[in-house]
Amino acid sequence: MTGEGDQVLAERVVKGMVARDAFSRWLGIEVLEVAPRRCTCRLTVRDDMVNGFGVAHGGIAFSLADSAFAFACNTGGSVTVSIENSVTYPAPVRVGDVLTAVAAEEATSTRLGYYRAEVTNQRGEVVALFRGTAFRTSRTHETV
Amino acid sequence: MTGEGDQVLAERVVKGMVARDAFSRWLGIEVLEVAPRRCTCRLTVRDDMVNGFGVAHGGIAFSLADSAFAFACNTGGSVTVSIENSVTYPAPVRVGDVLTAVAAEEATSTRLGYYRAEVTNQRGEVVALFRGTAFRTSRTHETV
Amino acid sequence: MTGEGDQVLAERVVKGMVARDAFSRWLGIEVLEVAPRRCTCRLTVRDDMVNGFGVAHGGIAFSLADSAFAFACNTGGSVTVSIENSVTYPAPVRVGDVLTAVAAEEATSTRLGYYRAEVTNQRGEVVALFRGTAFRTSRTHETV
Amino acid sequence: MTGEGDQVLAERVVKGMVARDAFSRWLGIEVLEVAPRRCTCRLTVRDDMVNGFGVAHGGIAFSLADSAFAFACNTGGSVTVSIENSVTYPAPVRVGDVLTAVAAEEATSTRLGYYRAEVTNQRGEVVALFRGTAFRTSRTHETV
Repeated sequence: MTGEGDQVLAERVVKGMVARDAFSRWLGIEVLEVAPRRCTCRLTVRDDMVNGFGVAHGGIAFSLADSAFAFACNTGGSVTVSIENSVTYPAPVRVGDVLTAVAAEEATSTRLGYYRAEVTNQRGEVVALFRGTAFRTSRTHETV
Repeated sequence: MTGEGDQVLAERVVKGMVARDAFSRWLGIEVLEVAPRRCTCRLTVRDDMVNGFGVAHGGIAFSLADSAFAFACNTGGSVTVSIENSVTYPAPVRVGDVLTAVAAEEATSTRLGYYRAEVTNQRGEVVALFRGTAFRTSRTHETV
Repeated sequence: MTGEGDQVLAERVVKGMVARDAFSRWLGIEVLEVAPRRCTCRLTVRDDMVNGFGVAHGGIAFSLADSAFAFACNTGGSVTVSIENSVTYPAPVRVGDVLTAVAAEEATSTRLGYYRAEVTNQRGEVVALFRGTAFRTSRTHETV
Repeated sequence: MTGEGDQVLAERVVKGMVARDAFSRWLGIEVLEVAPRRCTCRLTVRDDMVNGFGVAHGGIAFSLADSAFAFACNTGGSVTVSIENSVTYPAPVRVGDVLTAVAAEEATSTRLGYYRAEVTNQRGEVVALFRGTAFRTSRTHETV
């Protein structure tokens, strides 16, 4: 179903998005893998990412998952925007933890894509479960 | 129902949390108002907060709402942690926008608090609707 | 902003939807009030609505809120469908309880409507907090 | 990790819950499979389950997923209650459709369980994606 052209398009779109994504850069997000409707990202939690309890702010795991989701849902070449997200936090995240988010499409309809992202730490423990719904606009990444 | 002591406690707890919250500091979050089970926070969107589309990364409005929620749900003095969040984005956020999040308790049960936060921009437009569920642990902020 | 014509349209659309809504009828849902982007519904919890713990099944409060949301988000005359819902349950619901759901729009964008519904029991206690995102199609209720 | 005793307990707990669950009975829910932290349920959509658009009411797929989730998260023998659910609807559900929900644990912490349920129709299309967070109380099913 997914040909070589789809993989090339996916990589080109994500490369373009990453180049402009200043916040993902501040977070130290690396894109480990891109495929149609799928993306894996990683970051290492720093001292400046903690909240009032000294553990990682909820926004850190959220933002990592959200970036992986945004990259994954744009791989088809249509400009695709997030409508809604939910997130849970099964385990706390600490400074020095290395977090990996794998975002992948779970279902699709005419204009919407339904994604799930799982964030794990360096011990393979699930630290966040993220869901995202995306809306495919009629614009393409060529015209952005 | 809410006495002067509750207000003093609320302010003391939030002051302590803010002092340790490095990520909220990076975000430039100011706490505008604190009351029992309620908190208002503000930030100005900077160049280093944009995503691959040149608008604010979803994590920015999320993190602002999440900080306001975390402060609000801890005002009672019990160490209270986020279990789950959901967020929607009715309007895009741009560099230079001034975002204000008002987080307040909608309902409570024995161990859980249910919060809603609304994020508006400088024109009063709703840019994010956030919901958070919080778990009150048996520890208090004195013992943190 | 909202004229008499809007109110007439809202009432006509909801009346038509209610007439076809067999599941809401089984639930015993009464529509108490309709206005543009707003609807209030009520039901009484019966013996055949309990779950394995002898309290109301989560699907009962959910379905009441979902009906109120569906009616509210269609009041503008465009066929509008639910994309996503979330729900929390601050208090249990028992047989004999009378539940009232108030659904109202919190924000809107070009094609999407963001709704909140609060479900209370006969003592005014919040038993469910519901959020719904709706997509306005280009069809109108005349053509259904 | 999961022994024969766990399987016996899981089956016994779910059998007891099903026996009391009047709403699941009305829905025609059959339990197809039970295992520790996992349950599969099925129903056939009837005429009395439609909404104002003549397709299945959102509460039907939700309730099927919610029952599968409730059974799955109680298999360990602790009385476990739902805190929060979210659901999306990638495809419409029609009268006569046979829906199957598979609920399984995605992660766990001291007191909470995080579950996902996927609802598919007789053609294997995903019609609902459901997430549930559950709280394990200190009571056991023996004492209910």
